[in-house]
Amino acid sequence: MLTALDSPIVLAPMAGGPTTPDLVSAVSDAGGFGFLAGGYLDADALGAAVAAVRKRTERPFGVNLFLPGERHGAGVASYRERLVAAGLEPGDPVWDDDGYPDKLALLLSDPVPAVSFTFGCPDPDAVSRLHAVGSEVLATITTPEEARQAAAAGVDGLVVQGVEAGAHRGVFENDPADPAGGPQYGLLALLRLVAAAVDLPLVATGGIVDGAGVAAVLAAGASAAQLGTAFLLCPEAGTKPAHRAALGDPERPATAITRAFTGRPARGIRNTFLDDHTDAAPAAYPQVHHMTRPIRAHGDPASMNLWAGQAYPLARSLPAAELVATLLEEAREATSRAAAGVAR
Amino acid sequence: MLTALDSPIVLAPMAGGPTTPDLVSAVSDAGGFGFLAGGYLDADALGAAVAAVRKRTERPFGVNLFLPGERHGAGVASYRERLVAAGLEPGDPVWDDDGYPDKLALLLSDPVPAVSFTFGCPDPDAVSRLHAVGSEVLATITTPEEARQAAAAGVDGLVVQGVEAGAHRGVFENDPADPAGGPQYGLLALLRLVAAAVDLPLVATGGIVDGAGVAAVLAAGASAAQLGTAFLLCPEAGTKPAHRAALGDPERPATAITRAFTGRPARGIRNTFLDDHTDAAPAAYPQVHHMTRPIRAHGDPASMNLWAGQAYPLARSLPAAELVATLLEEAREATSRAAAGVAR
Repeated sequence: MLTALDSPIVLAPMAGGPTTPDLVSAVSDAGGFGFLAGGYLDADALGAAVAAVRKRTERPFGVNLFLPGERHGAGVASYRERLVAAGLEPGDPVWDDDGYPDKLALLLSDPVPAVSFTFGCPDPDAVSRLHAVGSEVLATITTPEEARQAAAAGVDGLVVQGVEAGAHRGVFENDPADPAGGPQYGLLALLRLVAAAVDLPLVATGGIVDGAGVAAVLAAGASAAQLGTAFLLCPEAGTKPAHRAALGDPERPATAITRAFTGRPARGIRNTFLDDHTDAAPAAYPQVHHMTRPIRAHGDPASMNLWAGQAYPLARSLPAAELVATLLEEAREATSRAAAGVAR
Repeated sequence: MLTALDSPIVLAPMAGGPTTPDLVSAVSDAGGFGFLAGGYLDADALGAAVAAVRKRTERPFGVNLFLPGERHGAGVASYRERLVAAGLEPGDPVWDDDGYPDKLALLLSDPVPAVSFTFGCPDPDAVSRLHAVGSEVLATITTPEEARQAAAAGVDGLVVQGVEAGAHRGVFENDPADPAGGPQYGLLALLRLVAAAVDLPLVATGGIVDGAGVAAVLAAGASAAQLGTAFLLCPEAGTKPAHRAALGDPERPATAITRAFTGRPARGIRNTFLDDHTDAAPAAYPQVHHMTRPIRAHGDPASMNLWAGQAYPLARSLPAAELVATLLEEAREATSRAAAGVAR
């Protein structure tokens, strides 16, 4: 079993602020496994975050990196014009590699127990070098085919992401013709298909917000559950105030998948910006991310990305350690209920 | 606990042929709970199917009915022209109520243990009359809001359908602007949201093909799992030969949701007809169903509806009784695995 899977509770890396060193260390300290989000940070900032976690806990934790993709530019200029015409002030549509080579170099020189990847298949060389410094390697996948590719690259485990998941879908290819990102497997079906396709430990993610959900994915063959939205309301999380308020909105709009905020398919609570621009948004990541950054920075709930998984109305505002303990207790109750159910 | 939920294994009603009296009785006889599909049958044919099941088993079973919806006609004529232009020979775009009043009258005069509804919220009067003759009543729902409506109508339980499910989505409204049918909740997230919204027994359906999936939904709060695709390869099933062959195709195309075959969102294995016509298909049910019937009748896998849930590659060709026993055994193993997982 991987170190990252010593506990059935894994904190999802949430780039853009939520997974603070405080949150990561609190989850790991409580017997879960925390993931720092390396995405959007430069290597120095990531190094500082790693150091901050180490200062707060001696327990193991991981780092997630975004893999750079191909440079698709089609539709960027007209999308920018559209945003300007809507009275918004978009930033420049810059393409970058998210500082991936520097961050990988950092993790090779100053290793952490686990590294997970999103937005592609890590190359076998990177996997070997991480193995050589003692890190376990996981890849995020959304289809059985991606699972097979990642297994062939030598990873130690897979983060199996269902369509229910909040924020970015981890699809390897950002296909312009496919705005929702692939066949959109629900988590339970995907877990069973992936378990049949590869022989690797699986971390299930997507729409899990309570211990019953944790127990369900363990029954479905996962070794652990990775939860993001469930932790967004913890006091330790760096969730922006408007985002926090939207998650607790009694009106509870549904979520939808959109490329409008970043140029890659991601799930958020529906708001004006999402509804107005989803149909027009190009597959241009991270150019669209950089373009909408100044718009999102206003913190207006109508025009910022309110990432959330489908089950977000069930997220609770608890300290992280208490949430981890509650999830474990609920998961034990749920497995007893399932055992009684099949003993009929 | 409902009679229909004495067992954790429920056979999904599959209209159009698959759920033969042989299959329904074999599942009930093996300790599961079989559902006859009343959709597309007239009252006489349904009565004969009910009698045939009773002849084969003394165990309880249920009947599913499609509720008639509003008559949307927009786009029907141009869709018909499109099919003709494609060299196909569509039938007449007739609207009908699927003989619902007669079938309801049949089930009131000759009751069965359970009646489930699809395509809407049963009216409280129908629910009371079914209760008066001793039938349990279930409604199929796809969102927490639909769950609340059905609970208010007095049903005894809910069939909670995730986006993974094969064939028709049970969305109450066939919204022309929403070709995929609602917010498309994954089963696991939907179960948790519905369990929080209403206090009714839940039957989980969508993408469950093995005992691990059954155990997973029991852990997530369901009282039983309803499986359709899992039974399509049973020798007792009335699955058409080309459909059966497609389910076992080693090339395994993914599934997609489409209105192309019936005018309501439904999930099938992707083929030429689905890929060619999904974007153009109107929300006109059952007119599109009647239009494509002669096309589907040719049994050509490129142009017929190959209904299947997302996990269809895992369906097994076993006699129904053996499949029920296998599912129960696998579910017991899976609950033990989940219990070990949370005991870490």
